Amino acid sequence: MTNHEVYMDLALDNARAMKGQTDPNPLVGSVIVNDNRIVGVGTHLKAGEPHAEIHALRMAGELAKGGTIYVTLEPCSHHGRTGPCAEAIVKAGIKKAVIATLDPNPLVAGNGVKILKDAGIEVITGVRQAEAWKMNEVFNKFIVEKKPFITLKAGITLDGKVASHSYNSKWITSEEARHDVHHLRNENMAILVGINTALKDNPALTTRIPNGRNPIRVVLDSTLKLPLDYQLVTDNEAETWIFTSRRFDEQKKQQLEEIGIKVFVTKSQEHVDPVEVVEVLGENGVSSLIIEGGGNVNASFLEHKLIDKVVLYIAPKLIGGKDAPTFLEGAGIELMKDAIELTDTQMLPVGKDFKFIGYPKYNEPRDAS
Amino acid sequence: MTNHEVYMDLALDNARAMKGQTDPNPLVGSVIVNDNRIVGVGTHLKAGEPHAEIHALRMAGELAKGGTIYVTLEPCSHHGRTGPCAEAIVKAGIKKAVIATLDPNPLVAGNGVKILKDAGIEVITGVRQAEAWKMNEVFNKFIVEKKPFITLKAGITLDGKVASHSYNSKWITSEEARHDVHHLRNENMAILVGINTALKDNPALTTRIPNGRNPIRVVLDSTLKLPLDYQLVTDNEAETWIFTSRRFDEQKKQQLEEIGIKVFVTKSQEHVDPVEVVEVLGENGVSSLIIEGGGNVNASFLEHKLIDKVVLYIAPKLIGGKDAPTFLEGAGIELMKDAIELTDTQMLPVGKDFKFIGYPKYNEPRDAS
Repeated sequence: MTNHEVYMDLALDNARAMKGQTDPNPLVGSVIVNDNRIVGVGTHLKAGEPHAEIHALRMAGELAKGGTIYVTLEPCSHHGRTGPCAEAIVKAGIKKAVIATLDPNPLVAGNGVKILKDAGIEVITGVRQAEAWKMNEVFNKFIVEKKPFITLKAGITLDGKVASHSYNSKWITSEEARHDVHHLRNENMAILVGINTALKDNPALTTRIPNGRNPIRVVLDSTLKLPLDYQLVTDNEAETWIFTSRRFDEQKKQQLEEIGIKVFVTKSQEHVDPVEVVEVLGENGVSSLIIEGGGNVNASFLEHKLIDKVVLYIAPKLIGGKDAPTFLEGAGIELMKDAIELTDTQMLPVGKDFKFIGYPKYNEPRDAS
Repeated sequence: MTNHEVYMDLALDNARAMKGQTDPNPLVGSVIVNDNRIVGVGTHLKAGEPHAEIHALRMAGELAKGGTIYVTLEPCSHHGRTGPCAEAIVKAGIKKAVIATLDPNPLVAGNGVKILKDAGIEVITGVRQAEAWKMNEVFNKFIVEKKPFITLKAGITLDGKVASHSYNSKWITSEEARHDVHHLRNENMAILVGINTALKDNPALTTRIPNGRNPIRVVLDSTLKLPLDYQLVTDNEAETWIFTSRRFDEQKKQQLEEIGIKVFVTKSQEHVDPVEVVEVLGENGVSSLIIEGGGNVNASFLEHKLIDKVVLYIAPKLIGGKDAPTFLEGAGIELMKDAIELTDTQMLPVGKDFKFIGYPKYNEPRDAS
């Protein structure tokens, strides 16, 4: 590891420690070094408060002069509440800036760097870029595309099944894995299932950890089959949004709306189009979504290249069964060369199970950094 | 780690280093310590040559007296080429013996320990027992049951498929994983497939690594459908054994036998019974077997509790498809509580893929140690 990486790692640690408290702003950390000594650290604490660089510059005071600033995200060039950070860095007399990732918005990426360079500051970019990008993966997508960052989640057996041939599925994964899922729900603004999953399991889809935030429950239900006495309708634990097709039942829609359920009528005549659902969720401010759908819902989102991340809990169990469902059904691909590869993969132990994390690599690149 | 574990680990390392050269004997290592100093190390090199303890005692010479011997397997009590090791240990004046596992044969397990104890030697057993047992897992089963140790192997996508819905499967796993499979083949005496896999892939099932040993190719073929121009029949790379049912075609049997293929006619009227296959293989001296069958062959061996170990290569790819085959089909279980759990699991990176290793836990215990 170079010194640059050591200091950037400290900036990343400070940034990550604020997870969940900077929304809708990204996580950002900063470190200032002068004469091989750390003279300032900063992190963005909360939207509306100073950016990370400003905190670090304040701590460094006079010692910022001639120093090197490390920052996990390109300093801003716009006039916000605390002025453009790039200009503050210039004013403080910083000599070198090391930046992990450029601004996720391609329209403004590079503007902060330009201000620094124009002032004669040496700029190095890309140090710990992948880590810094991933830390704000939800923000990076939503700020640019105004569509939620979508995580496909499933709990499967080692032989790829999500239930036995008779649809028994309690439980596939360990208690530890199921607990981990509640952290995922806590971190996401919405959770989506298909009507078949809702009918089969009558799920609550809530976050069962202390101080957990419940995601908005989204159900794809093209004919409004969701029974009025189901938990998603009656429990008042979180909002429930139903996306239906033109085939919906008007009376059922009124009944649901009277209870406080939001019903979105989409353009589809048949099955609800996942592309439209994602657009509508984005327009309604949903920046992150987990999909816990059945095999067909999952496949339809993947076929439309809407999945950004895959999280699987793999239980070391075998159940067999030609007719036992898997988490990815639909038609499927024809030739192995068309398989969707996942990159940047991790496999972590969680209780007796394994947690897989990976990012689908579609034909066109998705990263803007 | 205690000192016992440190010394036993050295004995295990010496034992494991002989992998492949001690057959049909097990791997065994030994270390002798006197006054906190290692005074002897030994390992069993080759069947017919001295056991590990004898080598260690010879190296220690006079310093064995009053010392502690570490041995990965209970010293033998029978009169072989080098006499019973337990008696040699007593004669050398050893004071304490630390043993990892008892003899795998329950009929003689404890006999070596008894000789030591009767001579007043302090005996500690069970240090690094799991590691020592696993190192000789094939030997431990075969010596007792006279049936092969059976490894179920498959290469699967992350969504559990072994091929697309149109049976395209080249390639699911990475080159590194496929190379690893050849090491598995090299280590096993036989490899088994069902006739459907043989017909679909026309495989050679040989070991494609330098100096690799080819396993005996075993095909379950209840009506002798294997074409005479297929690699398994024509390539002369290794023996091919076919297990057929009473429905076999007498003329085809003669044709196969003329080419040098062994045909075993089993008692079954319909599908070949895997229990009988395993018995016959054991009677013919096959101590280890990999199953690379299709989903139905795999399921039938698992349902009969014949699988000792599962090795899966999991590729981080998604292919989907309700009709895409998985590596475990058949009827499958009904309720999750009847799922077959795998214990002692490992998940290792191999190229871009992950290699899973686990041991099915059936209702009755299988370990004799």
